[in-house]
Amino acid sequence: MTVSPMKSQTLGVCYYPEHWPPSRWAEDAAMMKALGLTFVRIGEFSWSRLEPAPGVYEFDWLLRAIDVLHAAGLKIVLGTPTATPPKWLVDKMPDMLALDAQGRPRAFGSRRHYCFSHEGYARECDRIVERLAKAFGSHPAVAAWQTDNEFGCHDTVESYSDAAREAFRKWCAAKYGAVDALNKAWGNVFWSMEVQSFDEIELPNLTVTEANPSHLLDFQRFSSDQVAAFNRRQTEIIRRHSQGRDILHNFMGAFFAFDHYALSKDLDVAAWDSYPLGFLERSPNDEAFKLRYMRVGDPDFQAFHHDLYRACGNGRWQVMEQQPGAVNWAPWNPAPAKGAVRLWTFEAFAAGAETVSYFRWRQAPFAQEQMHEGLLLPNSEPNAAYDEVAQVSKELAALGARVETARAPIALIFDYESAWAWRLEPQGENFSYPELVFAYYRALRRAGLSIDLVPPTAEAIADRKLILAPALFAPSRAFVDALAASGATTLIGPRAGSKTADFQIAPDLPPGVLGDLLDIRVQRVESLRPGAEIAIGDDGAFERWREFVQTGANASIELSSIDGAAALTRRGDAFYLAGWPDEALLKNVLRRALAAADIPVLDLPEDIRVRDNGTMRYLFNYGPDATDISALVGDAKLLLGDRLIEACGVAAFNVAPGS
Amino acid sequence: MTVSPMKSQTLGVCYYPEHWPPSRWAEDAAMMKALGLTFVRIGEFSWSRLEPAPGVYEFDWLLRAIDVLHAAGLKIVLGTPTATPPKWLVDKMPDMLALDAQGRPRAFGSRRHYCFSHEGYARECDRIVERLAKAFGSHPAVAAWQTDNEFGCHDTVESYSDAAREAFRKWCAAKYGAVDALNKAWGNVFWSMEVQSFDEIELPNLTVTEANPSHLLDFQRFSSDQVAAFNRRQTEIIRRHSQGRDILHNFMGAFFAFDHYALSKDLDVAAWDSYPLGFLERSPNDEAFKLRYMRVGDPDFQAFHHDLYRACGNGRWQVMEQQPGAVNWAPWNPAPAKGAVRLWTFEAFAAGAETVSYFRWRQAPFAQEQMHEGLLLPNSEPNAAYDEVAQVSKELAALGARVETARAPIALIFDYESAWAWRLEPQGENFSYPELVFAYYRALRRAGLSIDLVPPTAEAIADRKLILAPALFAPSRAFVDALAASGATTLIGPRAGSKTADFQIAPDLPPGVLGDLLDIRVQRVESLRPGAEIAIGDDGAFERWREFVQTGANASIELSSIDGAAALTRRGDAFYLAGWPDEALLKNVLRRALAAADIPVLDLPEDIRVRDNGTMRYLFNYGPDATDISALVGDAKLLLGDRLIEACGVAAFNVAPGS
Amino acid sequence: MTVSPMKSQTLGVCYYPEHWPPSRWAEDAAMMKALGLTFVRIGEFSWSRLEPAPGVYEFDWLLRAIDVLHAAGLKIVLGTPTATPPKWLVDKMPDMLALDAQGRPRAFGSRRHYCFSHEGYARECDRIVERLAKAFGSHPAVAAWQTDNEFGCHDTVESYSDAAREAFRKWCAAKYGAVDALNKAWGNVFWSMEVQSFDEIELPNLTVTEANPSHLLDFQRFSSDQVAAFNRRQTEIIRRHSQGRDILHNFMGAFFAFDHYALSKDLDVAAWDSYPLGFLERSPNDEAFKLRYMRVGDPDFQAFHHDLYRACGNGRWQVMEQQPGAVNWAPWNPAPAKGAVRLWTFEAFAAGAETVSYFRWRQAPFAQEQMHEGLLLPNSEPNAAYDEVAQVSKELAALGARVETARAPIALIFDYESAWAWRLEPQGENFSYPELVFAYYRALRRAGLSIDLVPPTAEAIADRKLILAPALFAPSRAFVDALAASGATTLIGPRAGSKTADFQIAPDLPPGVLGDLLDIRVQRVESLRPGAEIAIGDDGAFERWREFVQTGANASIELSSIDGAAALTRRGDAFYLAGWPDEALLKNVLRRALAAADIPVLDLPEDIRVRDNGTMRYLFNYGPDATDISALVGDAKLLLGDRLIEACGVAAFNVAPGS
Repeated sequence: MTVSPMKSQTLGVCYYPEHWPPSRWAEDAAMMKALGLTFVRIGEFSWSRLEPAPGVYEFDWLLRAIDVLHAAGLKIVLGTPTATPPKWLVDKMPDMLALDAQGRPRAFGSRRHYCFSHEGYARECDRIVERLAKAFGSHPAVAAWQTDNEFGCHDTVESYSDAAREAFRKWCAAKYGAVDALNKAWGNVFWSMEVQSFDEIELPNLTVTEANPSHLLDFQRFSSDQVAAFNRRQTEIIRRHSQGRDILHNFMGAFFAFDHYALSKDLDVAAWDSYPLGFLERSPNDEAFKLRYMRVGDPDFQAFHHDLYRACGNGRWQVMEQQPGAVNWAPWNPAPAKGAVRLWTFEAFAAGAETVSYFRWRQAPFAQEQMHEGLLLPNSEPNAAYDEVAQVSKELAALGARVETARAPIALIFDYESAWAWRLEPQGENFSYPELVFAYYRALRRAGLSIDLVPPTAEAIADRKLILAPALFAPSRAFVDALAASGATTLIGPRAGSKTADFQIAPDLPPGVLGDLLDIRVQRVESLRPGAEIAIGDDGAFERWREFVQTGANASIELSSIDGAAALTRRGDAFYLAGWPDEALLKNVLRRALAAADIPVLDLPEDIRVRDNGTMRYLFNYGPDATDISALVGDAKLLLGDRLIEACGVAAFNVAPGS
Repeated sequence: MTVSPMKSQTLGVCYYPEHWPPSRWAEDAAMMKALGLTFVRIGEFSWSRLEPAPGVYEFDWLLRAIDVLHAAGLKIVLGTPTATPPKWLVDKMPDMLALDAQGRPRAFGSRRHYCFSHEGYARECDRIVERLAKAFGSHPAVAAWQTDNEFGCHDTVESYSDAAREAFRKWCAAKYGAVDALNKAWGNVFWSMEVQSFDEIELPNLTVTEANPSHLLDFQRFSSDQVAAFNRRQTEIIRRHSQGRDILHNFMGAFFAFDHYALSKDLDVAAWDSYPLGFLERSPNDEAFKLRYMRVGDPDFQAFHHDLYRACGNGRWQVMEQQPGAVNWAPWNPAPAKGAVRLWTFEAFAAGAETVSYFRWRQAPFAQEQMHEGLLLPNSEPNAAYDEVAQVSKELAALGARVETARAPIALIFDYESAWAWRLEPQGENFSYPELVFAYYRALRRAGLSIDLVPPTAEAIADRKLILAPALFAPSRAFVDALAASGATTLIGPRAGSKTADFQIAPDLPPGVLGDLLDIRVQRVESLRPGAEIAIGDDGAFERWREFVQTGANASIELSSIDGAAALTRRGDAFYLAGWPDEALLKNVLRRALAAADIPVLDLPEDIRVRDNGTMRYLFNYGPDATDISALVGDAKLLLGDRLIEACGVAAFNVAPGS
Repeated sequence: MTVSPMKSQTLGVCYYPEHWPPSRWAEDAAMMKALGLTFVRIGEFSWSRLEPAPGVYEFDWLLRAIDVLHAAGLKIVLGTPTATPPKWLVDKMPDMLALDAQGRPRAFGSRRHYCFSHEGYARECDRIVERLAKAFGSHPAVAAWQTDNEFGCHDTVESYSDAAREAFRKWCAAKYGAVDALNKAWGNVFWSMEVQSFDEIELPNLTVTEANPSHLLDFQRFSSDQVAAFNRRQTEIIRRHSQGRDILHNFMGAFFAFDHYALSKDLDVAAWDSYPLGFLERSPNDEAFKLRYMRVGDPDFQAFHHDLYRACGNGRWQVMEQQPGAVNWAPWNPAPAKGAVRLWTFEAFAAGAETVSYFRWRQAPFAQEQMHEGLLLPNSEPNAAYDEVAQVSKELAALGARVETARAPIALIFDYESAWAWRLEPQGENFSYPELVFAYYRALRRAGLSIDLVPPTAEAIADRKLILAPALFAPSRAFVDALAASGATTLIGPRAGSKTADFQIAPDLPPGVLGDLLDIRVQRVESLRPGAEIAIGDDGAFERWREFVQTGANASIELSSIDGAAALTRRGDAFYLAGWPDEALLKNVLRRALAAADIPVLDLPEDIRVRDNGTMRYLFNYGPDATDISALVGDAKLLLGDRLIEACGVAAFNVAPGS
């Protein structure tokens, strides 16, 4: 990961001039500036206003809006409007709609009603993007572009249309060359699923029982590639017409249906949309947890995504949409706690965000999101978060806050293919790859550690002290070689290396290419229903999943289950954990691995979290009670906050590098 | 509400002569008469017998059946058979079938397989209704007509067919005139949802994510209008050919998908089908409640609907189908407690029913409802309820029971648009308008009060002491003016007035047009997951929903939350409750409002309910234990029942007017 | 049931030579032989290899595989490949796909993608089966044929295709002759559902509300007949070309969608696929039960199916697929306990299985079932069950184990039509016919009794001491006559005889044709939500269901409910139980009936089960603890196991006949 270029950290907002009378724009701009905002994102849903009829372009209003904002000293992030094709366009080519897995068209009337594989629609996007890029690409206020909006939102990555089928057949032909290679890779002999030509390949929906996992995984890879290709067409056009501007896209939380690392290669900056309360309500956390953090969100969820998208952006990232109040889309939508918006903002800056941009400037009184709060109430009065943003703005200036991200000593692998693979073949209903990686992440963060979430590449794991790879689906030989040569302590498993890239069981049994590094073989696995646990001495237990491991001569058994099976093995610096650890076991295993890697841990109170940005150490209180953090602060001078850190409080101070 | 014309209260039954051999009809008729029945409803599912082939009418059997019943001294309610078009008709016009929201035809093979917007089917209905009206409209036995049967049953109000789409486009054109007006009203700019002509409007199903709530609400209004128009075609035909006969329709319980007030304008009498046990099993009540009332039903559910449909019928209403035994359609179908059928019958008469009609005379041994009990077993022996009906018949005569409904001092607004709006935009999963209004209703009834459920019209709220309007969606200015001028105490909120009729947030913030009356503004709202409560001092708590209210100079804060926000405000006689009250809070708030309105309350034991019909006060025991009601009876002479009222018991006595 | 011919009991395995290099086949065969296996099932999914293109037959590989196995001394069960039609065939006739109840095609990409009513596909099956039968029918190694594979798996019995509709119309015409007979039998007058010709009959899917139960039941009968007819086409072809070979089919557990008795008439041997852990996870047992038996399965589930399929095979039956390790298809997939595979195998042999065949030889590393364990790991090393099978093989030889099934004194009726009828009309959500029969079965087995599960035929109930018929849907007059003449004690009810075969309530009220035998009439029934119980004195309670019974002069009331209704009646040897008994009541009622039938019971510890095969008595320990079985063994010499029977242990000894 490239160390970021020490940018000043700034604030922004999402704004929809087309929703408000032009007479209001100047006052809005002045208020934004006064609030301390730098960036304004606009335009991303406005196709029906930019091109109200085929070929009739009306860009004047947008130019006026940009000019007004520019005049107030604001910079523009300009969105392409391709997430919301207008009705006339859909009527012109009705087969541009995606089909859902049940074969139903996903119709006009909301947003994202298009199939990524439809060439006709893609050409329409080329056209509008090129027009916009030409018109605004050199405008001095335009600092950056956003492609489309939240790719994949509302489960739109996969489409089962004819266009998708044709494109998938071509994708398979390109990948496999000969159809026999595909038949062999997929194991199509199994149920006479063999095909004689690529034109016989179907999409894997509506099958009588589950489709072949190799088929399903390739379809997921294809679908992911289609999203990236769709995005790339836009970035290439924009780069031609708008030089020197950043291009970004706003990703989402808890969303893994395409490979965000891959798509991000075409971006300059990764952004994501952070809604702590909405995501908490939708999360698999239990009721007590959801009640406890109802107004502040999961203390680790935002941080996890900050780290993930920092990896996607190769160090350059931001929050494009920061929740500023209650939202409209979760099962329940409580108001944030007092101070929560400020807490979230500083958590992002502590993680190296270049910008935190709030969604949205003013609550729209109409349409689908009318219950989604903004910085302003619908009548333009400030809403509760307004003052918090003003405070943050002043504090940022006082701190001289800059992006100072450093490479973390710990690399936790997060791999999109693994997420797909174990979703397609969980083997036990509650085997969730994102939940497992997140459990590792939370345990590390509760130990006060800074972590990089990274893809499974040699570059990403270089120069680390500890590398963790739970459930890594099909690591490449090159990656395993890099791992072996890294000199880092590694903690691997369960399920890591158990499959080939074709979605077959590794030829020499799991962990496949990881076998030599660990000197073990996994003979059998089992999934465990809730309530079934395999105790690992006094260290905790396996739940959900456990494996039966055979160790070689060079592997030692560090922990065993009460039924006498190896639970944690070690060969040199490489540990293998043969199951899904409960919280206690995970903590104990990580403490062993951290000790082996010589990484010290902090003793944090339950709701306190820590994050370093350069020499600036931030402390956050996600709990409902004021908490004494003196032991964590030591003699340092607090630049923000107090030693008795209040609920939703933020503290900051300078630490000596490496302390 | 017109005071009813002091009719004698009568009994009836639903009968299907086409199910039984004609040789049996006379004996059935004699038994009905002997049992004390007055009315017999027949004919409503018999199209395949009335017109077995296109244009081949066979009315003779129906005439004979009517004559037989007439000869026994019974009166006929004749149903039009349009709920069950025969197979030949469906085959003639297969596109008459409704499409469900998934786009699937809702096929022949049960009932209600038609789309309300299909003009071809509507003409077929005109034809058969006209034939029937001509044939039987002047028959001396025919006292009334029932149109169709249970409009909307099995979720049939909405159809997503081509016919519905065409009709909806016309409806929109008629409402908005110009398409820009629609775009603005719906806020279609939001996601480039703007349309250029009414022909571009789609039905709001199968959209990628939720459709525009304004679109959804207009589609619901349209669908409701289509039902009313469908009914009106029949009433107009019948009135031409059957003068002096009442026209009614049998509505359902817990069903709000069309505006029953609006449809009822074309009726003389509103009827509904009362199945206390089936509805209890399907209700959102908890397990303990369902077990407690398993054999008698929710003590307030029937009463609520009696009041609702009395409002629909402008004072004239009846129970068309009264459950007489176990039914076949609930998740579980227990037998009624001994006495329950009599209890339900008197509860209806106490609420001013003109007639209580049992469904059905004899249990049919075949087809879908063969497990639905009747007054007779399938083999014609009396079933358990038979004797209870005989007893009721004698008691009615002894009491000289007449309809003597009086205008209640309390008006509780029940508004169909509000039910639609908050179903479309609950904002919290458990925000249910019918549940909220029902909670108010139950609390008032447990205080021994008589309530009118009414629409939000000036006429309906005139001459009241207390008016309650929880969550009233978009009150008109005229209604608010009437409210302000009423002189009554009012209790309003939460969410009342928060939207315009276009489904936009009220321009001056909620409660919109109610703002002046209350001198408050609602700045923010939040929904609360189960378990999350906002304590309101010792008075109870908000659950599900709460609002952050700003009070003006003329509003006082009567109750506050423990986090310091206004919970109950008051300006003069107008209260505003800023959340969803739990049972304790609702009781306390109502006691304040009732005191302000100078309405005395009764101290009722848990399972006892009270209802006045004229000067006749009825007491009902819904509990499993005999209960002493002496304190409620005082010195009065009991005309029915005993001071130790038995389980399922009914007591009645005359009270001095106004006591 | 014919007493079986004292065959030696053998072991087998399922093998897929097409999945492995031919160079491996000989070694596999040698290992199989060394392990003690006799039979190898092959071929059943290999169509795409047998006929890779239309009319291009490639049988050589199969011949080589058979020869290799033969050379090693193994016998072949050859499967027809019709469960997996290849892609070219589906492309040739796309309408051969079944449609699901939602009208969606069930597409290529897994297996069982065909409609049983599609004549074009049936002809293709005729062709490939005839080719195979001609090619291999006389091969000396081919001992038996398996038709298709797991008919109905993945809910494939019913199809809603045009082909199915046409076939159903013909089926109705053949059954009813005249359409009026159908209208009357179905009670189509009820909702004007009458049809004027058989061509107007639709399939009963996608109706607005539930279709007519008579319609639904006939459609189920038709669908069942189509499966039998499909199978029969294959058996007739095979018999022509492969004389002297057995024909079997592998049925499934907990699957009742077609009449297995009827289909089995065309087979020589019934087989089934026994997956104790997978079925436990999918079962309606509670969490504690599932945790307790997680690694050994429900102690009675396998035995129940052994008995059921023994009846289907008229005494000749086997386990075709015995789970040898974790499977891949249940919600959770734990590893079997040590010893469980041996336990399951002996349980089958104790119940008279001719062969127990394991699925599969080697775990396939690819495609849908790659997580399904086999006797070998994917890399050909023995998996855990391998040694257990070796042990069983030796023990079978030492015991000289043979099939010695005797007619049991107890016949428990299991009737497929009853399963369909009460699924179509449960009347209470948890009224499940299979669960009810299974409850009787478990209670009898826990009393140490051997039971025959039998169809409701005169032959099946002849020569019994006790006959049980809970919830028997529509017994024929002939069956009732046989019952009356049997001299056996009978225990009948609830719901038994309550309907006619047309799915109408019995004319003289339930129990219809059973009325005279019992001298009772059931006037009313009710279903009870969970938690609602009707106590039957101290003997237990009714739950889920209870009836109100009127007794005649010749019937006595043996048990009454606390609300004063008859619960258990008796006329002579005939008992009627008027509800769904809880565990305690069922035990008490059965003890009465067993005493009346003069059948002694055993006092078994909780997890111990007993089964006699001829004079050999087997004892099984399904529990986690070693248990003393001395009291059950008495003085006998144990041929297998120990008096302190270990967890998953098996004991065996000879008992004197009749003891």
